[in-house]
Amino acid sequence: MEKRITMAHGSGGRATQRLIEEIFAPRFRNAVLARMNDAALLEVEGGRLALATDGHVVSPLFFPGGDIGRIAICGTVNDLAMMGARPRWLTLSFVLEEGLPLADLERIADSMAQAAEEAGVQIVAGDTKVVERGHGDGLYVSAAGVGIVPPGVEVEAANARPGDLLLINGPVGNHGITLMLRREGLHFDAPLESDAAPLNHIVAALLEAAPHTHTLRDATRGGLATALNEIAQTAEVGIVVEEAAVPVDEAVRGACGLLGLDPLYVANEGVFVAFVPAEEAEAALAAMRAHPLGRRAQCIGRVVADHPGQVVLATALGAERILPPLSGNLLPRIC
Amino acid sequence: MEKRITMAHGSGGRATQRLIEEIFAPRFRNAVLARMNDAALLEVEGGRLALATDGHVVSPLFFPGGDIGRIAICGTVNDLAMMGARPRWLTLSFVLEEGLPLADLERIADSMAQAAEEAGVQIVAGDTKVVERGHGDGLYVSAAGVGIVPPGVEVEAANARPGDLLLINGPVGNHGITLMLRREGLHFDAPLESDAAPLNHIVAALLEAAPHTHTLRDATRGGLATALNEIAQTAEVGIVVEEAAVPVDEAVRGACGLLGLDPLYVANEGVFVAFVPAEEAEAALAAMRAHPLGRRAQCIGRVVADHPGQVVLATALGAERILPPLSGNLLPRIC
Repeated sequence: MEKRITMAHGSGGRATQRLIEEIFAPRFRNAVLARMNDAALLEVEGGRLALATDGHVVSPLFFPGGDIGRIAICGTVNDLAMMGARPRWLTLSFVLEEGLPLADLERIADSMAQAAEEAGVQIVAGDTKVVERGHGDGLYVSAAGVGIVPPGVEVEAANARPGDLLLINGPVGNHGITLMLRREGLHFDAPLESDAAPLNHIVAALLEAAPHTHTLRDATRGGLATALNEIAQTAEVGIVVEEAAVPVDEAVRGACGLLGLDPLYVANEGVFVAFVPAEEAEAALAAMRAHPLGRRAQCIGRVVADHPGQVVLATALGAERILPPLSGNLLPRIC
Repeated sequence: MEKRITMAHGSGGRATQRLIEEIFAPRFRNAVLARMNDAALLEVEGGRLALATDGHVVSPLFFPGGDIGRIAICGTVNDLAMMGARPRWLTLSFVLEEGLPLADLERIADSMAQAAEEAGVQIVAGDTKVVERGHGDGLYVSAAGVGIVPPGVEVEAANARPGDLLLINGPVGNHGITLMLRREGLHFDAPLESDAAPLNHIVAALLEAAPHTHTLRDATRGGLATALNEIAQTAEVGIVVEEAAVPVDEAVRGACGLLGLDPLYVANEGVFVAFVPAEEAEAALAAMRAHPLGRRAQCIGRVVADHPGQVVLATALGAERILPPLSGNLLPRIC
């Protein structure tokens, strides 16, 4: 008989202990976690830390190119990387639904361990709660993380300034469209998969090549358009995006056309935009293209002093129109 | 019409932004949060940090003495305090269920802001997701936190050693019994309420008075008995608890009798045990009793070299019996 999560796994007693010892400890093994304390003890040098959190309720739990475990690790790693930080330590907080097959939890924990290894981070503390059948959806997980910001790095949403060029590392829309098709049971000939990936290594290479990079932002929920609007508003600058320059895979473009979606609003889990001073843009682009996650890196636009707080799309036909942030809800539970 | 959470609040677009600006930002206001970055930037001196996380699925959301917001803040603050750390910064990750009244979310956020102020911590980053009606239970929340461990403090589960005395700050069982009665719709004449409280200030006073304290542990899920078993196993020591010395309120004792529960296994949210060398125990007890959360502090037992890994209860009648960790599930969704 298939083993499943029971309410006892959330008791804090023997069953919780067994779950930790049998599923999490062997996969996330490290010296800090092994000490079985209420909190992880970490040695740091003085300086600046980055601290971030991200919750994940993605449905379905498994999809082409990833699963909830992979995006939970990548989501928090990427939030730290967007501050120019080197991600180091993560914590995980699970809400499990009674009845979840233990085999699913094992597969998700395997995927988390692999993503953590790719990113070079340690999972140093965690918590597990269980809710009754019908009060969850298999598994929700929140990750929090700490990273170290190297001296000299000054990357912030507020720092974007007129003259900066916008560099993107790869095509938009793959994550959201993959999930959408999976959820609706639609099949496309073209292979589509989520782009979920840890961006910290490509960001480190970029910052080496372009140390005066002003701002980094990953284009997750709400897509590229919403991410750029957040920067325009926080930095009080205008942004112009050249529509034709934004990389979009043919399969994504086709699916968006059929479904009536705009790829600029579709969620990604491995796409980011760098706001780089023009004089460092060439070196930045070369560094991005030299990394496996940046082979299709492009300059997609620029920061301007006009229309502060707004993003303008320059279309292929030479027209310009305002690109607002997402309103309503394009795709629920995308991450 | 009552305003409620909709799926659009989880879109990452305008509605999410409005939720942050109208509910969270005004209550959690601080300079770090205001910068609207993907991660919070924190300045630290070199040394040791503590990092912890705790998820909360307590049902009901509101109960006498607290709510899910108060225990979410206190839970993570207390996990940090149990390492001797000074808690400084928290992150919050919400999973909201479609249909949750906004007034409930506001009340919970108010309660979080108040608990954070009591503890002296800042909420510096957060995330909000929304799940469809029937896939949650109003609100789940995970908190993660970072604290600073002062030089010289060496408090760890593994450090408990024979000769240590066990000091408890107050009576056990109030949180769990309060929730149990509330959930079952039972009423008692005696006023009962949750003990949810941030323990960092009383811990700081204790460590000042007893700087060689070896171990601290809060007795949450699984109660005092389970917490002591974890220490006995991690430190590979024996523990003897004097049953008559453990403070239990009359109302809790009465309710436990009626319900067939043992107060030693009932969850607390403001109770901790300190493992203190005998020569510092008197000063430690005095410091605890001088603090509002420690007025009824007691010495309840000692660490021994015998029966490593086991907790033994010395009963009022002079008998001894093994006190195992909780097995099964006493009270689901207690925190």
